[in-house]
Amino acid sequence: MLTTSTARPVPQPLPVTYDDVAAAARTLTDRCHRTPVVTSRLVDERCGARVFFKCENLQRCGAFKFRGAYNALTRLPAGQKQRGVVAYSSGNHAQAVAHAGQLLRIPVLIVIPRDAPPVKVEAARGYGAEIVFYERGGESREAIAERLAHERGLAVISSYDHPHIVAGQGTAAKELIEDAGPLDFLFVPCGGGGLLSGSAIAARALAPSSRVVGVEPAAGDDAARSFRSRTLHTVVNPDTIADGARTSSLGKITFPLVLELVSDMVTVTDRELLSAMFYLWERLKLVVEPTGALGAAGLFEGKAAVRGARIGVILSGGNADFRQLARFL
Amino acid sequence: MLTTSTARPVPQPLPVTYDDVAAAARTLTDRCHRTPVVTSRLVDERCGARVFFKCENLQRCGAFKFRGAYNALTRLPAGQKQRGVVAYSSGNHAQAVAHAGQLLRIPVLIVIPRDAPPVKVEAARGYGAEIVFYERGGESREAIAERLAHERGLAVISSYDHPHIVAGQGTAAKELIEDAGPLDFLFVPCGGGGLLSGSAIAARALAPSSRVVGVEPAAGDDAARSFRSRTLHTVVNPDTIADGARTSSLGKITFPLVLELVSDMVTVTDRELLSAMFYLWERLKLVVEPTGALGAAGLFEGKAAVRGARIGVILSGGNADFRQLARFL
Repeated sequence: MLTTSTARPVPQPLPVTYDDVAAAARTLTDRCHRTPVVTSRLVDERCGARVFFKCENLQRCGAFKFRGAYNALTRLPAGQKQRGVVAYSSGNHAQAVAHAGQLLRIPVLIVIPRDAPPVKVEAARGYGAEIVFYERGGESREAIAERLAHERGLAVISSYDHPHIVAGQGTAAKELIEDAGPLDFLFVPCGGGGLLSGSAIAARALAPSSRVVGVEPAAGDDAARSFRSRTLHTVVNPDTIADGARTSSLGKITFPLVLELVSDMVTVTDRELLSAMFYLWERLKLVVEPTGALGAAGLFEGKAAVRGARIGVILSGGNADFRQLARFL
Repeated sequence: MLTTSTARPVPQPLPVTYDDVAAAARTLTDRCHRTPVVTSRLVDERCGARVFFKCENLQRCGAFKFRGAYNALTRLPAGQKQRGVVAYSSGNHAQAVAHAGQLLRIPVLIVIPRDAPPVKVEAARGYGAEIVFYERGGESREAIAERLAHERGLAVISSYDHPHIVAGQGTAAKELIEDAGPLDFLFVPCGGGGLLSGSAIAARALAPSSRVVGVEPAAGDDAARSFRSRTLHTVVNPDTIADGARTSSLGKITFPLVLELVSDMVTVTDRELLSAMFYLWERLKLVVEPTGALGAAGLFEGKAAVRGARIGVILSGGNADFRQLARFL
């Protein structure tokens, strides 16, 4: 009798659990919008399925990021709340941290590239954040943030690789499943994997037979490659309109969660992304930014066999620049 | 002692009552979307008030029109349902009647101008409607519809001047007040006054102290003039981007309702309308068509003293043509 013995890795406890998501949900009650879940007969006919869109484009600050930011800031120790936090982002995370800091009276410092759109700088400033500019090509923003954190005693709030951020982001999928009922699939945009891993934690707990599909831009497919090879891949400044998914890689916290809980990773081209965005505008009347349409594009482009299924899609943000996008019409 | 005697008109019963709206709401349960009510801190700060947007742009067929159309068609006598209906519209009413007819298996004939955008013709055809084209400048569409109705035994379904249409449109305001709680103001787009008078009936019953404000394009201010003079004024083909409010006048049914139940009529320019639309897109992430943004524009432009108030705004439709509107950016 032949026996084989394989060295099995000792199971590690996951860095974030559903209890953390449930605790975040309690924290966020009345603090963030319980965004609507929208359905469309046209979409259902197109997909041959029943599709539920979770409208995080209608969240405070226009994206799901407020969930994680508020959850993370509210859980800081009292002394840290007094000293404050630093975040590096030119996008939705910066606004979310700045706004959460304003609400919680926590000083916020944002490290932002010198050439960021002035409107984004003003948005963070409008929430009372202090702005530190950096030059692209010089010291990395991570290094600047770490240095400032050290000098001033600030806590660095990563946009995705932070347990309270992941737990906060997971509350969107929790609400979606509560409102839509059991799902067979959940399509989620993926940049650094904060929203994706949080969603997967919620789905595993509330719809355990559902398949969670992460969707990345094809030009920045590091997470898809990391998922398949089970080794962390990185990309450098990928050329995609999905600016929220230009993250160089999954994180120390999000990578194991994605490996353990996500069923598949797929990619879409910028052309497919634009097509999904305009469809959502014209048919669903929802303004969704490129990164926010990744999940919908993955569904529309047939990246999973979904006929007859009940499908959740997270529309993760709506901060689209009309003048920029009108050029693609 | 001086006494004056004024001949008071004998009060006439109103042609549509809240009972009709409540009955329409029962009919429409599970047939139309209970559209979300969206709030925005930014808007609240801008207006110094608490604002609740009723998202009829997310309604079936992209506008509130489906409510009235379905309600009217479902209440036809059985024989009339077999013979069918005729509607004249190149816009949201045509699609709504066509779609309601498809669902209720009632034949629908749509009278549409020869030069209507092909996409609108195809939308009505896609719902199984028969299309009859007419040439602008020839026989009026009303006359064509009446002739066809007579020849074929069809019922004419007016887009606004019909009691079941008015009652159906009133269900949007009913839902809004149920979901948002008591209101001090309700801003409603006004074309032929179907949505406005239906909304005013609902508001009088459910929020009796609220003030209902109808908002018209300045270029087509017939309803505002009619309201002030208490005499029906008409306009001919007014030049405004609010294509759903180019109606020539209030109707026999809607005019007395507007006179009795509406608190004020105000107007906004096309420039103010565009500004409101782009604000709703960029800040609320909602695609709203020009006519659908009339109520919001009236609020944003300070057409009523609303500071500290609780305000409902009906965003009545979202069928915007992006290529057309991108030119205004």
